[in-house]
Amino acid sequence: MVAVERSLPGDEAEALFDLVRDLCANELAPRAAEYEAEERFPREVFRTLGRAGLLGLPYDEKYGGGGQPYEVYLQVVEELARNWLTVGLGVSVHSLSCYGLAAFGSDEQKQKWLPDMLGGEQLGAYCLSEPQSGSDAAALTTRAVRDGETFGVSGTKAWITHSGHADFYTLMVRTSGEGPKGISALLAEADTPGMTFGKPENKMGMRGSVTAQVLLDNARVPADRLLGEEGQGFAIALSALEAGRLGIAACAVGLAQAALDAAVDYAKTRQQFGKPIADFQGLSFMLADMATGVAAGRASYLVAARRRDAGLPYGTEAAMAKLFCTDMAMRVTTDAVQVFGGYGYTADFPVERYMREAKVLQIVEGTNQVQRLVISRALTRV
Amino acid sequence: MVAVERSLPGDEAEALFDLVRDLCANELAPRAAEYEAEERFPREVFRTLGRAGLLGLPYDEKYGGGGQPYEVYLQVVEELARNWLTVGLGVSVHSLSCYGLAAFGSDEQKQKWLPDMLGGEQLGAYCLSEPQSGSDAAALTTRAVRDGETFGVSGTKAWITHSGHADFYTLMVRTSGEGPKGISALLAEADTPGMTFGKPENKMGMRGSVTAQVLLDNARVPADRLLGEEGQGFAIALSALEAGRLGIAACAVGLAQAALDAAVDYAKTRQQFGKPIADFQGLSFMLADMATGVAAGRASYLVAARRRDAGLPYGTEAAMAKLFCTDMAMRVTTDAVQVFGGYGYTADFPVERYMREAKVLQIVEGTNQVQRLVISRALTRV
Amino acid sequence: MVAVERSLPGDEAEALFDLVRDLCANELAPRAAEYEAEERFPREVFRTLGRAGLLGLPYDEKYGGGGQPYEVYLQVVEELARNWLTVGLGVSVHSLSCYGLAAFGSDEQKQKWLPDMLGGEQLGAYCLSEPQSGSDAAALTTRAVRDGETFGVSGTKAWITHSGHADFYTLMVRTSGEGPKGISALLAEADTPGMTFGKPENKMGMRGSVTAQVLLDNARVPADRLLGEEGQGFAIALSALEAGRLGIAACAVGLAQAALDAAVDYAKTRQQFGKPIADFQGLSFMLADMATGVAAGRASYLVAARRRDAGLPYGTEAAMAKLFCTDMAMRVTTDAVQVFGGYGYTADFPVERYMREAKVLQIVEGTNQVQRLVISRALTRV
Amino acid sequence: MVAVERSLPGDEAEALFDLVRDLCANELAPRAAEYEAEERFPREVFRTLGRAGLLGLPYDEKYGGGGQPYEVYLQVVEELARNWLTVGLGVSVHSLSCYGLAAFGSDEQKQKWLPDMLGGEQLGAYCLSEPQSGSDAAALTTRAVRDGETFGVSGTKAWITHSGHADFYTLMVRTSGEGPKGISALLAEADTPGMTFGKPENKMGMRGSVTAQVLLDNARVPADRLLGEEGQGFAIALSALEAGRLGIAACAVGLAQAALDAAVDYAKTRQQFGKPIADFQGLSFMLADMATGVAAGRASYLVAARRRDAGLPYGTEAAMAKLFCTDMAMRVTTDAVQVFGGYGYTADFPVERYMREAKVLQIVEGTNQVQRLVISRALTRV
Repeated sequence: MVAVERSLPGDEAEALFDLVRDLCANELAPRAAEYEAEERFPREVFRTLGRAGLLGLPYDEKYGGGGQPYEVYLQVVEELARNWLTVGLGVSVHSLSCYGLAAFGSDEQKQKWLPDMLGGEQLGAYCLSEPQSGSDAAALTTRAVRDGETFGVSGTKAWITHSGHADFYTLMVRTSGEGPKGISALLAEADTPGMTFGKPENKMGMRGSVTAQVLLDNARVPADRLLGEEGQGFAIALSALEAGRLGIAACAVGLAQAALDAAVDYAKTRQQFGKPIADFQGLSFMLADMATGVAAGRASYLVAARRRDAGLPYGTEAAMAKLFCTDMAMRVTTDAVQVFGGYGYTADFPVERYMREAKVLQIVEGTNQVQRLVISRALTRV
Repeated sequence: MVAVERSLPGDEAEALFDLVRDLCANELAPRAAEYEAEERFPREVFRTLGRAGLLGLPYDEKYGGGGQPYEVYLQVVEELARNWLTVGLGVSVHSLSCYGLAAFGSDEQKQKWLPDMLGGEQLGAYCLSEPQSGSDAAALTTRAVRDGETFGVSGTKAWITHSGHADFYTLMVRTSGEGPKGISALLAEADTPGMTFGKPENKMGMRGSVTAQVLLDNARVPADRLLGEEGQGFAIALSALEAGRLGIAACAVGLAQAALDAAVDYAKTRQQFGKPIADFQGLSFMLADMATGVAAGRASYLVAARRRDAGLPYGTEAAMAKLFCTDMAMRVTTDAVQVFGGYGYTADFPVERYMREAKVLQIVEGTNQVQRLVISRALTRV
Repeated sequence: MVAVERSLPGDEAEALFDLVRDLCANELAPRAAEYEAEERFPREVFRTLGRAGLLGLPYDEKYGGGGQPYEVYLQVVEELARNWLTVGLGVSVHSLSCYGLAAFGSDEQKQKWLPDMLGGEQLGAYCLSEPQSGSDAAALTTRAVRDGETFGVSGTKAWITHSGHADFYTLMVRTSGEGPKGISALLAEADTPGMTFGKPENKMGMRGSVTAQVLLDNARVPADRLLGEEGQGFAIALSALEAGRLGIAACAVGLAQAALDAAVDYAKTRQQFGKPIADFQGLSFMLADMATGVAAGRASYLVAARRRDAGLPYGTEAAMAKLFCTDMAMRVTTDAVQVFGGYGYTADFPVERYMREAKVLQIVEGTNQVQRLVISRALTRV
Repeated sequence: MVAVERSLPGDEAEALFDLVRDLCANELAPRAAEYEAEERFPREVFRTLGRAGLLGLPYDEKYGGGGQPYEVYLQVVEELARNWLTVGLGVSVHSLSCYGLAAFGSDEQKQKWLPDMLGGEQLGAYCLSEPQSGSDAAALTTRAVRDGETFGVSGTKAWITHSGHADFYTLMVRTSGEGPKGISALLAEADTPGMTFGKPENKMGMRGSVTAQVLLDNARVPADRLLGEEGQGFAIALSALEAGRLGIAACAVGLAQAALDAAVDYAKTRQQFGKPIADFQGLSFMLADMATGVAAGRASYLVAARRRDAGLPYGTEAAMAKLFCTDMAMRVTTDAVQVFGGYGYTADFPVERYMREAKVLQIVEGTNQVQRLVISRALTRV
């Protein structure tokens, strides 16, 4: 696999990337197709990444994080997704799941739990959606009732990545009345009594990654696992999503890059009419458009990332990057199959899988319709 | 399922459509999802259709065909594809396979074989592509050497729909030197000695339909099964493809209609923010664009069909219809998944399957790049 | 100019088309570029067309109309627009302006005025929009107060094609309270006291066509010029627009066809790298996409037209045709300029004009956003 | 005008931007619409910019340049283009015209001429295209024959921005045989004997900017005005174009930003159905897509610019930025007109002008087809 030319900020980041490329080549690439075909969740791959320090990259070194800027962290996610979307997205989701504690937890909470969460052995899940509340996340109905030192939590969380495999679950629950103000965030352990996990969804793609409901039947979550204040949960959730959307954008770019790489390779070798199909403008102009989209996508998420790293507001830019990169990935992967013709429609080449995987990125962490809502509100705010 | 309003030419066609809708409701719709999930080829469904007269619709009644204009035949294909693409496409491929004999065979040949082919018990396969010749079909290398009263045929045909299940195979083979002039068409029976069938391709979609290689190792095809003259095979193949492309266009419209139907239904019932998502322009404008595309696609293939029915040249119009309808179907099915959000990404709803199925239509019977070549040549011909 | 192959219903229509093609070649084509450059309104060309019977084509022969089906009438509009959009659109607007009387007028009214309106000497204007009510047409505020045998009409009508040049004006005015039910339709003569005309709008294109406000300052319209009942005006307006949108769709197809014709001609003769640029797929595939769009557009409006001719509801189909054809024309004309490169950006070739003209079609008689609203409502109606 | 949030590298750049914003507000914005309507070339505005140091920004301070990185220079071009495309593009073309001398001239040549060229009083023109050689630039036929101490130059240069207004002309001419190797670059003064200027092209937009032929009839260019070696001209031209394409990309982003700004403002104030049209998702989602495109475009050209500033190859990235940004600007400006409805189609608002201006950007300094060629060659190079 040809290395993507990256502008990394310094030698440490370069060294990190050497490590990432090695792990991709040795641990991800050889397994991706097989695991996805067999619908196996690569729990041990996350452990390997974790031990290499890749599960806490954007967090404070004080708590065991990697202390990396988002500019670097996201490019790592991109590279992982390029080799295996289930893993790239999993790392992004794990980061998202740590966000509530890292950004809103007390020092005591952070000292107690964050090192394990960032240290590599644990994997997280982020639980916001419910069967009846997707885009309208603030309408969630999972209820948490305080009862002395515990919350009793009841309801159903839906579309939860890592459900049943994660070690901790950041749960958005309703602790008081309707609307966003009534929502709080709890950090539940996997073995929380009363918490069980649904049957994995039968998905079009990313079948190696588990998506399932989290079922809460008076689940007992200790009250000291409340993150921030009661009623602050929705703010925590949205704030986490801003960062999370950048992870999705980076995943989309990685996936599209993989599709482009495969299409270019194929177009250079497949012959028709006595020459490589890459010699026909009808084909090569399509490749040019694909590459242009990938480059614009990468540039887009890096703009948002650098704003975040500089402490600037970046929510609108993150929404734009998520929207742009995932629409682009859908287009690029679909065209990559086209470049392969009939061969592309079979599992003999990875592009059909890329296309199936791309679709989910237009939906997760805010559908692209929700992104447009976020962006247009920012534009037309008086 | 709401009936599509159609302008059918007369009562006979209306009656035919009543039959088709019944068969769709009773035989296709109940099986489609399950068979596709289980990768079962619905051979018996084709038999049911055949007995109802639907496997010979556009052919001469004299030989057992239905004597229907393409305008009607294609709308039947559309309706079948709307309910089950594997079946709609299968009927189109069967028609394509009969075309060589029907249009270029001698009276004697037609009397001998055509009634069985059109009568409903048999299913056909059309064998043009090879592993190394796809878009450049005229470069095919499967060789047929005449040896007294038989041809000895050796080579590999690729991407053959119904391979191993079909009863007859229209084979394009090389009987003399390079290029299109050296190609001839043979009509081989399923039990031709020396003809075997490859392992089914592991496809992204249409997994209920079998696509596999046809392997020819000095296969013995009787010389009286030559269609037309020696050297006429490529002309036969292209002529068949003109009609075949209309079948693909009709399939694409049917598939897109199915996706639109599902999306509209879902958008009317799924609630977010206290009202059906169909009430949000961000969603409903997408539905409007989808419906507009479906209608334009249907109109496009009917234009070409009516030209064919009127005896006018229609090859360019067929290529435009194939290009337009299949690109449209790819877009519409992808958007249909989006309308469903996370639900759309699972097998709980049919839209993810539609999206996987749509992709193949941009590739078969001439990739959309080949269609653009056909169209642009017609435009710029001096 | 190469004739577009059309499927016309019978010899009379063929003869009509011979006439139309002659008029286009002799009266329209030689003037279009010059008049548009000089911003001259071709009043005399409309007179020529009118005398040839082309200003009343879709109306009842009893009142002097041509008695032609919409299928034929719209293809005439397309052909006129292909040669000169100002004229094609003008004919469509004239038809729109006659609609209220023809469809809702009393026999007496029709006998009195319709023959002159359809006879060719007169030209009409349709006055619905106002400066503050465009898409929300039902919010119009021009007020008509009955005072014995006349209405006193006050207000401003905006974006009126033929304003100041037309002989009659179909005015939508408010005769009672708010909303659509308070609107009535009046047929005013050009010399109505109190009616004056604004300065022509300085438009991006269609500069030969006049668009201006109609200023009503207690304008005296005789009460017998009320069309239909009081309060029926909005229904009349919408009903007229359904038909009118088909006229716009036909105009868009004609304009796009002209752009395609020009681009194909240029691509066949312009040489680069030692051969015609049409020989490069990067260029010729663009031509193929343009031609495919034009054909799909024509097919779309004809579907709606034939439904109208058959007495079927056709409003949704008309909205889809208007949306599809005008978006297509915008794309095709923009690409046509691209085919010409720098030359296309100058007035030396007509394509820059076509591109400027295309834009207005996405806006008039309901913006394409309004069309999407109409279509999505039809789709999701319970 | 709301300031675009920019990440500028340091206080000097911030100060420069304050100056630029002032000049835009005071010198450009008040003149743009009027000059463009009157087709007046704003020679004095260039002089004002020049005196402020804006005509030599990316060049070496040693020769009077601004010593700014491309990252800053291009954002200045963007800001100028946002206020007036004729000026933004003019600055970019001027830079392009200086490039040959700055990058390939001898020290002596640079000392002699460069300070005047960068100092602000002079304006440059870049002369590569010819009537018969556009995309195939290497086929140029303008011939320069050395005759002692002068070249006699004959031929016609086409599509030359600033033709007749510029003070110096960088001419690509043929000094020996066919193909790229036979081309040399000359730096001619405006008063070169035998050099005259054609009639300005009658362009769709950018009518304030002059584009015309440069006519060379044995024009006498001193031999010491040869830049680089004989035969090096095509390499100089392409090298200049790499940088020039970034200028066009920046112009496209500025123009699209202006269109977006105008559309957002209008959508917030224009009311229909009782509320601002920005409150309708059908409109606001369009704004979101426009903003997303603008941001991705800006990010794209900055990636290429930073590579250039870092001394890395950037030609492919420049081609991608030019392709992406100009296609985006065409789309965004067309949609901006749509947001305004009928008003947008008139000269009462600037968006119709933006749309007319955008088109030329898809054509100049390599059509977008040429960019796709450049990109696909880089992708598929073995």
